[in-house]
Amino acid sequence: MIKVESKFFTCCEPPNELVLKSGEKFGPITLAYETYGQLNEDKSNAILVCHALSGDAHAAGLHEGDSKPGWWDIMIGPEKAFDTDKYFVICSNVLGSCKGSTGPNTINPETGKPYGLSFPVVTIRDMVNAQKLLIDHLGIKKLLSVAGGSMGGLQVLKWSVHYPESIKSAVVIATNYRHNAQQIALNEVGRQAIMADPDWQKGDYYGKSIPARGLALARMIGHITYMSDKSMEKKFGRQLKDKEKVGYDFSIDFQVENYLKYRGDSFVQRFDANSYLYITKAIDYFDMTEKKSLIETFSETSAAFLVMTFTSDWLYPPHQLKQLVKALKTNDIDVTNIVIESNYGHDAFLIEQKEQTRVISPFLARIKKERTW
Amino acid sequence: MIKVESKFFTCCEPPNELVLKSGEKFGPITLAYETYGQLNEDKSNAILVCHALSGDAHAAGLHEGDSKPGWWDIMIGPEKAFDTDKYFVICSNVLGSCKGSTGPNTINPETGKPYGLSFPVVTIRDMVNAQKLLIDHLGIKKLLSVAGGSMGGLQVLKWSVHYPESIKSAVVIATNYRHNAQQIALNEVGRQAIMADPDWQKGDYYGKSIPARGLALARMIGHITYMSDKSMEKKFGRQLKDKEKVGYDFSIDFQVENYLKYRGDSFVQRFDANSYLYITKAIDYFDMTEKKSLIETFSETSAAFLVMTFTSDWLYPPHQLKQLVKALKTNDIDVTNIVIESNYGHDAFLIEQKEQTRVISPFLARIKKERTW
Repeated sequence: MIKVESKFFTCCEPPNELVLKSGEKFGPITLAYETYGQLNEDKSNAILVCHALSGDAHAAGLHEGDSKPGWWDIMIGPEKAFDTDKYFVICSNVLGSCKGSTGPNTINPETGKPYGLSFPVVTIRDMVNAQKLLIDHLGIKKLLSVAGGSMGGLQVLKWSVHYPESIKSAVVIATNYRHNAQQIALNEVGRQAIMADPDWQKGDYYGKSIPARGLALARMIGHITYMSDKSMEKKFGRQLKDKEKVGYDFSIDFQVENYLKYRGDSFVQRFDANSYLYITKAIDYFDMTEKKSLIETFSETSAAFLVMTFTSDWLYPPHQLKQLVKALKTNDIDVTNIVIESNYGHDAFLIEQKEQTRVISPFLARIKKERTW
Repeated sequence: MIKVESKFFTCCEPPNELVLKSGEKFGPITLAYETYGQLNEDKSNAILVCHALSGDAHAAGLHEGDSKPGWWDIMIGPEKAFDTDKYFVICSNVLGSCKGSTGPNTINPETGKPYGLSFPVVTIRDMVNAQKLLIDHLGIKKLLSVAGGSMGGLQVLKWSVHYPESIKSAVVIATNYRHNAQQIALNEVGRQAIMADPDWQKGDYYGKSIPARGLALARMIGHITYMSDKSMEKKFGRQLKDKEKVGYDFSIDFQVENYLKYRGDSFVQRFDANSYLYITKAIDYFDMTEKKSLIETFSETSAAFLVMTFTSDWLYPPHQLKQLVKALKTNDIDVTNIVIESNYGHDAFLIEQKEQTRVISPFLARIKKERTW
């Protein structure tokens, strides 16, 4: 497996701060990013991959000393969907996260202390604007594609509308064109769990006890929404954890309880609770129909679209993106819509290698061939 | 509207304690219950209605001084589905709850203090066994029907298998024949939220600060699962709460967030956190296939069944009860299975008056007419 390491890009030093959607100015900003494959001479083979809520810049390959590859390694590499023998793949950690890019746990150079809640509220648009500065810095004028699932898909949609001249195609997977009531509700419960934890301390917990219980709860809720009824039933059913019979007490009886506890507790070791608040809020603010109808929103877009959803994804069910596809088609945009049969729920975009590859590979090959301008 | 009041039945005084499924003996037990309509002379018109997780004995009519009727008032009353001009309807609060029946917040007569976690873990079977003692006490040998939705439906299933001689029919609504992995997972997150609240104090919080944050979180999660994607979208969409625009902060932006907060906070005023733990655990332990196959489990059952589910109920989706219907049919049991088109999600059984009445009324009339033995 390819050995990789993260690089860092810094921009927006005062007085050239990034103007955020809220109107606030913010900088400096550092973005952690990784690249896979080689940028060709005319810089026409670059693909930006955008990560989901808890993702990071480490999308593929192995970090020195690690045994676990990047989060989308099944999709990025030689002869994979995003074939690094052909394409130059870039992934950067979003603004507001805690995996190397500037976020609430970053030291504020003005105070010498972590930002905490003094970090500005950022939006998906702001994340994309920061990514655009990185792409400019890499000397890439036009991306062959921008691709992502879940929150990654939200970023792709923003790219397609706000930088239509800068992308040739958009791969939008398992997401929505605006966060709806149920999706907001699920995020809000996660946020309330964190903020209800006395250790949260209004976000000022760095160097002290972290709000571990709240963040673990938020992640447990998340995990339930990432799986499907069927995938949970298949993986766990009513299997007991190391037990002959149920305990008739409040300890862990079932394997599914144990799994959620494990996923919650391990998340706490690798993610910052304040970042969870900021990023879920950015997701909830996301609405491509905020100012115009969905059709009008995409009227200036020139990218070709690949829109993929999964049958058992109840967090971002296929029927929602059908509205997007309709709006794109109404604008006579080149759009391929695939609903993949899968029992893996929302997680399918991180699991279904074959089915996604079967669709993405020819799509990218076609875009590369057709869109030579 | 009919004025009603709760009555109380006490049993299982030591040394005649109830033997629980765990093997533990427990008593005394008090059950709060209400009745609507008149028991006829041969006591053949009695229907037991079983409530859901947060329900109580107050299923219909008005309590003195209240403006809000009982939880299933749309279904119980003169000329309603459970027509109190014809039937004698009984509803009792389950063992382990906090609405008048013995539960963890009840004073333990031996110590003079609330049971807290010294209350024994109870199961749906135990709840039903206690109900059976109440029905015996009322002098009813055979119930015309036992009916309930959600956890109420679990009780109905237990009645049909463990007291087949005592019921003529079973109305099973929006439930499952065993709690599955996703359903357990959702309950477990609620329990973890309560137990993570420092005010929970291992259940010993009576007379002190209650674990309000944890219980409110558990209820928020619950409410999301009770509604459907579509009903949430219709009711809230991305409507803002008293705002011109989003706040770019962590206060409540969206109406759906405000609704969840309201439902969470108001639940804390009326429900006991320990009861939430005990009752969800009873639900999770529920498994009609624990000892035998689903078909064998119902081999001794003689009741006629009405099984109803709702298309948009993703917590207890229709496909699960189809397995039950198949097992009943295999046993040549008289079963009517109706999937009702509804956007209200799991809550539909508390909302869809017309559609449910259209099915339940003739079913009960037929049972009354046909099953005269």
